Amino acid sequence: MEGKEEDVRLGANKFTERQPIGTAAQSQDDGKDYTEPPPAPFFEPGELTSWSFYRAGIAEFVATFLFLYITILTVMGVVKEKTKCPTVGIQGIAWAFGGMIFALVYCTAGISGGHINPAVTFGLFLARKLSLTRAIFYMVMQCLGAICGAGVVKGFMGKTRYGMLGGGANSVAHGYTKGDGLGAEIVGTFVLVYTVFSATDAKRSARDSHVPILAPLPIGFAVFLVHLATIPITGTGINPARSLGAAIIFNKDKGWDDHVSPSQIFSPFHYFLEINYLFRLVWFRLQWIFWVGPFIGAALAALYHVVVIRAIPFKSK
Amino acid sequence: MEGKEEDVRLGANKFTERQPIGTAAQSQDDGKDYTEPPPAPFFEPGELTSWSFYRAGIAEFVATFLFLYITILTVMGVVKEKTKCPTVGIQGIAWAFGGMIFALVYCTAGISGGHINPAVTFGLFLARKLSLTRAIFYMVMQCLGAICGAGVVKGFMGKTRYGMLGGGANSVAHGYTKGDGLGAEIVGTFVLVYTVFSATDAKRSARDSHVPILAPLPIGFAVFLVHLATIPITGTGINPARSLGAAIIFNKDKGWDDHVSPSQIFSPFHYFLEINYLFRLVWFRLQWIFWVGPFIGAALAALYHVVVIRAIPFKSK
Amino acid sequence: MEGKEEDVRLGANKFTERQPIGTAAQSQDDGKDYTEPPPAPFFEPGELTSWSFYRAGIAEFVATFLFLYITILTVMGVVKEKTKCPTVGIQGIAWAFGGMIFALVYCTAGISGGHINPAVTFGLFLARKLSLTRAIFYMVMQCLGAICGAGVVKGFMGKTRYGMLGGGANSVAHGYTKGDGLGAEIVGTFVLVYTVFSATDAKRSARDSHVPILAPLPIGFAVFLVHLATIPITGTGINPARSLGAAIIFNKDKGWDDHVSPSQIFSPFHYFLEINYLFRLVWFRLQWIFWVGPFIGAALAALYHVVVIRAIPFKSK
Amino acid sequence: MEGKEEDVRLGANKFTERQPIGTAAQSQDDGKDYTEPPPAPFFEPGELTSWSFYRAGIAEFVATFLFLYITILTVMGVVKEKTKCPTVGIQGIAWAFGGMIFALVYCTAGISGGHINPAVTFGLFLARKLSLTRAIFYMVMQCLGAICGAGVVKGFMGKTRYGMLGGGANSVAHGYTKGDGLGAEIVGTFVLVYTVFSATDAKRSARDSHVPILAPLPIGFAVFLVHLATIPITGTGINPARSLGAAIIFNKDKGWDDHVSPSQIFSPFHYFLEINYLFRLVWFRLQWIFWVGPFIGAALAALYHVVVIRAIPFKSK
Repeated sequence: MEGKEEDVRLGANKFTERQPIGTAAQSQDDGKDYTEPPPAPFFEPGELTSWSFYRAGIAEFVATFLFLYITILTVMGVVKEKTKCPTVGIQGIAWAFGGMIFALVYCTAGISGGHINPAVTFGLFLARKLSLTRAIFYMVMQCLGAICGAGVVKGFMGKTRYGMLGGGANSVAHGYTKGDGLGAEIVGTFVLVYTVFSATDAKRSARDSHVPILAPLPIGFAVFLVHLATIPITGTGINPARSLGAAIIFNKDKGWDDHVSPSQIFSPFHYFLEINYLFRLVWFRLQWIFWVGPFIGAALAALYHVVVIRAIPFKSK
Repeated sequence: MEGKEEDVRLGANKFTERQPIGTAAQSQDDGKDYTEPPPAPFFEPGELTSWSFYRAGIAEFVATFLFLYITILTVMGVVKEKTKCPTVGIQGIAWAFGGMIFALVYCTAGISGGHINPAVTFGLFLARKLSLTRAIFYMVMQCLGAICGAGVVKGFMGKTRYGMLGGGANSVAHGYTKGDGLGAEIVGTFVLVYTVFSATDAKRSARDSHVPILAPLPIGFAVFLVHLATIPITGTGINPARSLGAAIIFNKDKGWDDHVSPSQIFSPFHYFLEINYLFRLVWFRLQWIFWVGPFIGAALAALYHVVVIRAIPFKSK
Repeated sequence: MEGKEEDVRLGANKFTERQPIGTAAQSQDDGKDYTEPPPAPFFEPGELTSWSFYRAGIAEFVATFLFLYITILTVMGVVKEKTKCPTVGIQGIAWAFGGMIFALVYCTAGISGGHINPAVTFGLFLARKLSLTRAIFYMVMQCLGAICGAGVVKGFMGKTRYGMLGGGANSVAHGYTKGDGLGAEIVGTFVLVYTVFSATDAKRSARDSHVPILAPLPIGFAVFLVHLATIPITGTGINPARSLGAAIIFNKDKGWDDHVSPSQIFSPFHYFLEINYLFRLVWFRLQWIFWVGPFIGAALAALYHVVVIRAIPFKSK
Repeated sequence: MEGKEEDVRLGANKFTERQPIGTAAQSQDDGKDYTEPPPAPFFEPGELTSWSFYRAGIAEFVATFLFLYITILTVMGVVKEKTKCPTVGIQGIAWAFGGMIFALVYCTAGISGGHINPAVTFGLFLARKLSLTRAIFYMVMQCLGAICGAGVVKGFMGKTRYGMLGGGANSVAHGYTKGDGLGAEIVGTFVLVYTVFSATDAKRSARDSHVPILAPLPIGFAVFLVHLATIPITGTGINPARSLGAAIIFNKDKGWDDHVSPSQIFSPFHYFLEINYLFRLVWFRLQWIFWVGPFIGAALAALYHVVVIRAIPFKSK
């Protein structure tokens, strides 16, 4: 009781957890009222026959669809004006990204965990919070949702205008190196996934009253803040699904626009072409930065949370 | 207890709900601590003799009045300047709409449910959360409140200036088709009503601590975000009362300004004219988009929530 | 219990309160778990000998001091630039006012109730939430705090620059009538005080989990939103202390700048002059609008809350 | 119970605490359900052997690193454009500072108390909330984190561009005196540390439901608001680590850029030079303002909280 109340105060010292350094956090037997969930198994066959598994995938699809729809449409509205004053501005774009994550995490947290981002899914998978099957299923649904969301925006804007305005796709801005872009994605994703880990920490949720209740808000703010900082560098990815969806739909000079005829849908060669285009997109258009960067950032955040903050490897069973 | 705690963590898998797919969510007997309220009847005669029914209608009237007053006045302040820099900007308009919904949902949630929007009322009616009598009463009060709110703004601005500045009325912007406008209204209202359903889900409220407490905030943010995205397309309706109020008061070229003389108030022909004007407004000024779009969006959100998320049709009694 | 849970859901109908209309809310015996506090007496002699009474006054002084300091300094920073792009903009001013109220209500709610505004104090006094002695004491402390806060800003900016930039004082803008200004103040203060009443409603606090916890946030947002809407009309007062403080310190052409010599401090005629200046300020500079408007708005909000929402006059003991 | 409920309402009078003035708050025996923690000792040898002590330092380092990284990068993005319209603007800078503090206090409150600011650490130390050893350890880690964060931004921007753009370093703007700058830092830090004390007050946390839950939000807003007001004066420090980190990395004309050769790392004279540079930086570049100002502001806030609000010196044991 005592320890629990004391931790609520932000400025308090956590004296109750004082332990000799050598043994790290091995003997935390001070009246803890939380249960560390067991690590999720890699393959969870039972999941595949439960409705809640597929429902979670549908929720991720819908959430990522709405995320891309609102954000890319906001980007279009800003980019299509010469001066930014009669638009919501770059700051409005940052609000669109962060605000949507806030609202969507609020809406889907209880259904799928509210990832809406393959990097978040990857980070939580590394911390063994969800199975590999679920992680892959989520990532696929997120990417499909993102492609559809960007596609609807393209439908609204018209092919020509959408292409001219850049389609909201991420790229490393002039004046910055590939390394700068990659670094910006790594640190940006670290900020986001670190916040997600802080919000989903079972120990802190049981102790600090603000942690479980505010959770979606700081996660949304993290996305907002990273956009404030790195829109001038990469347009801010920190979400591979968002980058992929916008890049695939914005395919101006990659020959994806005009070549699909009904007969091609059944042609194996057509799909070979598609995959070929996809690889060229990832490689030559530097889209790999928006997969490698976020995944490294998420992995570092998982490492920081598990090893430094929770010291889980040093705990005895 | 276990399941309840586990769901609070955003990244958690909901393993406790694992069920065979074929039977969907039919056997949810895992220690649920919420009661699904019975569907509201279509006609609830008892309501009509309760004070709380009429008080709720008054609260909806006042809330929609204040909503239109603050938002249309903000729009006027931005539109009347040539450059947008010395104003609160388009982003400020989005904040006015979203922020007012946040504050008003906070204030009226306990009195009327805090709809302030016929599309929200329609969506909740489809999910059988309120009776038809109540739904129609709310919608009428919302439209009256919106007309009065826009009217007060017109009084402040003066007839000429208000007319020149567009009166905050919704319309499909140059460069977009009617279909784009309708689509933007549908998806935008989906975002809003989906958030409302997530915030009012009895099951999630009982389980996730952030759901009932933050509720008004993501609902307000949903409105803010849709405005960020679709102000350049339709000015953003997603609220038929808001569109109707602004359109009726901004009646520049529809002959509504000068034709009301005291004698006409008692003339049946006058009211025939009024209704004629109203129909012409809805049809020729494309105001039907701002009723049809939001209602389709709300219906889709109700469908998504009831069928996919809650799987209510598949549950046995 | 049932009724309590049901009300948390925003879209829910409050069927538990169904009563015959004629008798209004006379028989609310449905398991209420809140206690309506008795109306505060007009004079509470005991207060005058308690430390918490004076501490509350000091807290109101400090809060209003900080409120004026931050907000007027923000106004100065925006006004001193020719174009608004290299400043935080008008929207930034609105955030300063709303955000400060949020932070200060959060900080002082538990000490003094967190009014920071004579109109709020007046509204709560009308609803008998605090005694007349306390109300007057608060208002005096608020006005003194506001004068000191604006004074510090003047010290930072220098007399000349402060005067040229308008000193953040409220006035009715060119193009609007006195009636427009008064109306804008009335409705604006109604929005604020209505939100305050919703946040401090004992019945709703006991029932809806979001009401007591979010309380400072919608109150701050209400101030933010009214500023978005009415900065172009009056600069937005809705707080007589804020208007008085800025007007007294910004006394460019009223001869208050240079006439205080040490000897005058002990001269009764000096104080006669001061009061004369004050009356002329209130009357000729239209500062009465910023007292009459907010007080009418607050009274209407108190009326709406007490009579319509709570129906207290119709309740039997 | 009664007293507890009554205080939740914002407008309520705290009659339960009525005491004779002379005896101040000496006899607060009215059913209090909180325990005032004992003052932290100056030296707490046990801390030095606990893992949680070092973990807290690491968390402060990482948080301050991320704080400087995001905020200075945002400043760079705004400053590098000639007109501010195609950037997130000065308001966006204020959001970056305030939003990061919100997110980081949320993330680190349960690990280290979430200071991320030597002035906050100093204020809490004065109120005896943490030991001297811990306070010094935190400050050192905060300064190191800030230097690294600013350094990464310099790496992204390139040495030349970073130097030309001012490196986000604080300085007193043209048109303001040193006294204005110092005063702005004092009052600004008072706002922040006063909010921190309000959020960490054991008594209020036990009583007002919004205090512990919202805590990180008003603290972040306090930072945002002070930035809105004082960016035009000093660029806003109110955080000595932030000022030091940016000033050290932005060392254009102080000869720190080119003089480190591998051999120098082992040369005692090199370190003498470094310290000499540091002192000259603090003294001639007016960086002392950003240490003295925040520390005075924090001390005043601690004094206000301890003596006026809590009246701790007047309480008998």
